[in-house]
Amino acid sequence: MSSKPSGVFVPVLTPFTRDLHIDNPRFATFCKWIVSQGAGLAVFGTNSEANSLSTPEKRVALDALIADGVSPAHLVPGTGACSVTDAIEMSEHAVRAGCAGVLMLPPFYYKGATDAGLADYYSRVIDKIGSSKLKVLLYHIPQLTGVPITFTLIERLIKQYPNTVVGIKDSSGDWANCEGMLKNFPDFAIFPASESFLAKAMPLGAAGCISATANLQPAGISEHVKRWREPGMDDRHKKVDAVRQIMQKTNMIPALKYVTATYGNDAEWSRVRPPFETMTDAVGKPIVDALREVGFATPGWGK
Amino acid sequence: MSSKPSGVFVPVLTPFTRDLHIDNPRFATFCKWIVSQGAGLAVFGTNSEANSLSTPEKRVALDALIADGVSPAHLVPGTGACSVTDAIEMSEHAVRAGCAGVLMLPPFYYKGATDAGLADYYSRVIDKIGSSKLKVLLYHIPQLTGVPITFTLIERLIKQYPNTVVGIKDSSGDWANCEGMLKNFPDFAIFPASESFLAKAMPLGAAGCISATANLQPAGISEHVKRWREPGMDDRHKKVDAVRQIMQKTNMIPALKYVTATYGNDAEWSRVRPPFETMTDAVGKPIVDALREVGFATPGWGK
Repeated sequence: MSSKPSGVFVPVLTPFTRDLHIDNPRFATFCKWIVSQGAGLAVFGTNSEANSLSTPEKRVALDALIADGVSPAHLVPGTGACSVTDAIEMSEHAVRAGCAGVLMLPPFYYKGATDAGLADYYSRVIDKIGSSKLKVLLYHIPQLTGVPITFTLIERLIKQYPNTVVGIKDSSGDWANCEGMLKNFPDFAIFPASESFLAKAMPLGAAGCISATANLQPAGISEHVKRWREPGMDDRHKKVDAVRQIMQKTNMIPALKYVTATYGNDAEWSRVRPPFETMTDAVGKPIVDALREVGFATPGWGK
Repeated sequence: MSSKPSGVFVPVLTPFTRDLHIDNPRFATFCKWIVSQGAGLAVFGTNSEANSLSTPEKRVALDALIADGVSPAHLVPGTGACSVTDAIEMSEHAVRAGCAGVLMLPPFYYKGATDAGLADYYSRVIDKIGSSKLKVLLYHIPQLTGVPITFTLIERLIKQYPNTVVGIKDSSGDWANCEGMLKNFPDFAIFPASESFLAKAMPLGAAGCISATANLQPAGISEHVKRWREPGMDDRHKKVDAVRQIMQKTNMIPALKYVTATYGNDAEWSRVRPPFETMTDAVGKPIVDALREVGFATPGWGK
């Protein structure tokens, strides 16, 4: 990245083999398709089932992607973990691999963490790596972590690491929070986690978005981020948002994989790791029908 | 273990060196003291900051403990993890090391898991290990995981693995839940997570307890579990419970370490990993004063 990432990053779905190992060739093919659609790769995010993968699995898969021709300039892997040891290991690996940035969850098992305790976690990772190449996006997703990234923590980290802590993904789904961040931290790269917020967020200076459903419509969302000032974008946005609205009512991760499998004519894609269950046709087909009804297509994806 | 564990298991505090590595010699010394007090070792539990440790760190520390003379017959390490890969690796290691059992959290990042999804996680670990030596205690701590172990899940796992899934630690702090488990699953080894429940739980067939504060009073709690039928135990229980009541109002993990450091005359013991902060004297001293006021002692601990 330049100094700060911008645009659309996809929390890329992770395909699994029959015995639930990461399916590296399918993963690379999907990543290349996403890049061809104009979006970047936030691999190992929440929707990647990253927290169902071990650190060594993520490390090996990242190397395999790059070996398979995916440019690290497009990669912003998730590297946060409950254990600061894992967070250091994965972040260090991403920096060495030349990734554009990293997306870092706070440690999320223990609740009631203080800003000082969380700042200590981020500091230990950043200080240990000690590289100006490290660019950190914080990750606020309190509904899953129970550990919010507060405004005072953001302020503290920006002050301490102005060239390293460069942005945040706000997955709270709370527009007031996102708006508050945009107004309070104008130089920070702020990514709402839903394309539904783009029409409001881009005029306030959002950096782009990192959205689950960007797995399905990377081009549509990227276009909105790049051309939001142009006339006619409102209507286009409505089309993109219609897909989001359908998917938001589903069990998102199994549903995204089911849709990706269906549009790609590749049933292997639908597999998930526990605690998720692979979506059945009985549940998945009506979702695909609803998407077809709003004219959803995945240009260039699949056989 | 015989077929089922019973008695008191301590979720052993994990001491750290100055640079926050696991301090193996201090860890072994503390474990041996606990065993000398009549309790077993649920290392790598919640109060061990286990979820702030990586899988390789836990594996190496377990080996070091055993090499240092701690008998695996006393060990019931925590092996559950968000990633089934980590859970398999750690559980397999524990079984190979000859540990008496394992305590397994469900995968705890993704919320809204179904019983089927959670059963799939436990099955994958149990089936992969495929050893009659594996004895699993489930771990119900919904206030930290957001992923409860329901009665229907317990029933399902007991039916599928009657000789492997042998018990549960109930850390909900909800007596109605604990009582329900004791009544519904009479042959299951049920461990409430607080000694405060023992007076009610032992007559209903509890297997013992696995309690944070057993780090401070392993002998007192063990005595209660072994001799609850004897006259005079009510008064002794009140003394043990007084310590629990004091500690319950603190920030438990840093406070336990502060008290362990103070009673052991070893300040090194108080260190914690992020997201926790090491307890200051200003916060810790009044806790120690309160413990001294109720006559609390740690016979044989410290220099």
